Amino acid sequence: MTDGFFQRLSNAVAAHGPLCVGLDPSPKLLSAWGLTDDAVSTERLARTAIAAAQGVAGIVKAQVAFFERHGAAGYAGLERVLADARAAGLVVIADAKRGDIRSTNEGYADAWLSEDSPLAADALTVSCYLGIDAMTPVFELAHATGRGVFAVAASSNDEGRGLQTARLASGATVESELLGALGAADARLGGSGAAPRCLGAVIGAQRRPEGVGAFAGPVLVPGIGAQGSGPSELAELRGVLAHDVMAVTVSRAILGAGPTPATLRATISRLADELR
Amino acid sequence: MTDGFFQRLSNAVAAHGPLCVGLDPSPKLLSAWGLTDDAVSTERLARTAIAAAQGVAGIVKAQVAFFERHGAAGYAGLERVLADARAAGLVVIADAKRGDIRSTNEGYADAWLSEDSPLAADALTVSCYLGIDAMTPVFELAHATGRGVFAVAASSNDEGRGLQTARLASGATVESELLGALGAADARLGGSGAAPRCLGAVIGAQRRPEGVGAFAGPVLVPGIGAQGSGPSELAELRGVLAHDVMAVTVSRAILGAGPTPATLRATISRLADELR
Repeated sequence: MTDGFFQRLSNAVAAHGPLCVGLDPSPKLLSAWGLTDDAVSTERLARTAIAAAQGVAGIVKAQVAFFERHGAAGYAGLERVLADARAAGLVVIADAKRGDIRSTNEGYADAWLSEDSPLAADALTVSCYLGIDAMTPVFELAHATGRGVFAVAASSNDEGRGLQTARLASGATVESELLGALGAADARLGGSGAAPRCLGAVIGAQRRPEGVGAFAGPVLVPGIGAQGSGPSELAELRGVLAHDVMAVTVSRAILGAGPTPATLRATISRLADELR
Repeated sequence: MTDGFFQRLSNAVAAHGPLCVGLDPSPKLLSAWGLTDDAVSTERLARTAIAAAQGVAGIVKAQVAFFERHGAAGYAGLERVLADARAAGLVVIADAKRGDIRSTNEGYADAWLSEDSPLAADALTVSCYLGIDAMTPVFELAHATGRGVFAVAASSNDEGRGLQTARLASGATVESELLGALGAADARLGGSGAAPRCLGAVIGAQRRPEGVGAFAGPVLVPGIGAQGSGPSELAELRGVLAHDVMAVTVSRAILGAGPTPATLRATISRLADELR
């Protein structure tokens, strides 16, 4: 890869806007589509959505949990889903929220961000309860391969507020400290300029962590639609950030329009327009 | 299942002591065993360790990251590793550190704790950056199936200290608040007595979160051996807790003794004796 992740996401946003089609083949959605709850149907739902997104949206996000439910068979489907999305020219985010100690994170980096992994995605979401510095192997591999990482800073769900706004000894909140650490790691690793700004953050549409305006990395934004926020929260967040390289995820509001491909495509197209 | 997870772990500890054999088939270990870095070798290393542990130790923990590195093929191997360990009568912990918003956690619960999942384990580790209350679907399924959950409270690695000792608005530290919330959720869900104390915590051997003495759930203890702590830290932690239902994980110090089965078994046996 020549461009870094920030640039590739920026290109996708320039072409189609920030809409990120969330591939969340939950049991409830499988049932709503008239599909059985198995690995084959899970793959089918996701690939139907990818086909509907091609040319209309620029970004997709696969929710790994709903493939992992089906074990190795689910992962075999996920491999094809990720490959399918890449072949369709979409920026593909693996939403896995991985995170552990440093030596284990080498394994997660390999799984999702190495060039020759069957699960390779353009970006991976990570969760840093064990400390952001423990994520270094993931950050390093992202920079080395021009891929991206989105670390959850301020999640869209309310249950996370207590922890994310807890204060460290320095006086900073957990979410704000994390944004600063991401920026520092990005500057350190991308200093040579080969693949700058690979390290992004997950920031819920309605969240405004202290110092968020200084965050220069890409941003993954959940919370739109089924989770309660709308275009006004999004416009405000865009105004606070110094850039508009965001992936705004919408899942249930899109997949709920299936399974008819034309209806799915029309829904994606309408939402893409609304978010532009 | 009739017994709850706490009881089954307690039985294993009574029979063999708290040693938990860590199955961490990292590239470095595969190489040290003279194996190639692929899914087949990853499975082979883990199953060799399980065979060596049978009858000598009572608990194993599979590090999921090192199977995920190999995609669906790695997961197919992991399914057999988990089944193999269960068939050997071992208590099997899937060390996956999963955690997301509530609706996604339903997927992770299904994957690792449902009776008919190909990846079913006796217990799952979770990571709660998105809030412990978001883990409710995982906690509920654990109680329903008599399985266990270990939420990372105070990890053994130093990078996690800042976040884990940050203070919430209540004045409690993140790790201490989490221990309290786990106990409360366990009491609420296990109130009927069917499967009490399914909700455990990960507490590094050298960590002493505020109020840890009141924590009544099972405890997963990393940090022994390669990570720097020893039997004295462990004895001290055991003294602070109100019970001794702990799984003390050792990985590199065991697997580094392979690949000869007799040497592996002797190492496991010696460590099991030391930790009793």
